[in-house]
Amino acid sequence: MNRPQDCIFCAIIAGQAPAERVYEDEATLAFLDIHPQGPGHTLVVPERHAALIYDLDDETAAHLAQALVRVARGIRAALAPEGLSVRQANGRAAGQDVMHVHFHLIPRGAAAAPAGRAAEERAVLARRIRAAIEASR
Amino acid sequence: MNRPQDCIFCAIIAGQAPAERVYEDEATLAFLDIHPQGPGHTLVVPERHAALIYDLDDETAAHLAQALVRVARGIRAALAPEGLSVRQANGRAAGQDVMHVHFHLIPRGAAAAPAGRAAEERAVLARRIRAAIEASR
Repeated sequence: MNRPQDCIFCAIIAGQAPAERVYEDEATLAFLDIHPQGPGHTLVVPERHAALIYDLDDETAAHLAQALVRVARGIRAALAPEGLSVRQANGRAAGQDVMHVHFHLIPRGAAAAPAGRAAEERAVLARRIRAAIEASR
Repeated sequence: MNRPQDCIFCAIIAGQAPAERVYEDEATLAFLDIHPQGPGHTLVVPERHAALIYDLDDETAAHLAQALVRVARGIRAALAPEGLSVRQANGRAAGQDVMHVHFHLIPRGAAAAPAGRAAEERAVLARRIRAAIEASR
């Protein structure tokens, strides 16, 4: 699917909108959620625009899942949360807000970390997660 | 990881515990949740035991994601829900109940379908989803 002009995630992928990036490969990007439900709340998205999970081809699905595991390990290494919730919504009825496939990684019980509501806190969190992912490569 | 003796999902995979199966391939199994949060609530699991998302190897992660997309499409074809929630929990702090990686697919707003709380309803739902997945192969 071509990039819709009004897709904020496509704009982030293209470098035309700001985001605290923590991971990128040839098919996926991960960056911090700007409205975090917990410290280190990260989104993993395919770089090629797709609105819903039904729209993912096999190759993109594989890349996404592998990125999900890598970023999850990085969050664990950086923040040592007690738990980690993975969530992905399809359609407004499921609570989808941005119509570009995105998996939420929401750390639970990472008490030592800042919440990440302020931009400076997100920059610190992103640096820690990014460093942990890079160290594991 | 070897199969823990007390893992209910490993028992289902081995055919030693009952479940309404909707999809299976060489690395993954999908079956209906016995405590559905909505009609057609399905679990997708790796056949090789892994407790947490951090434990998945690249190949298993790829198979899981591809199965997730296939089963999601089958649910859409069978039940036409307004939305679909994908959820996966790691650790009790995130609400994980069974310590074997499982992705929930929870249809939202599939009003025409039975809830699936009774075993007979689940059998009907599983048959419809299974048929839809098979028809798309």
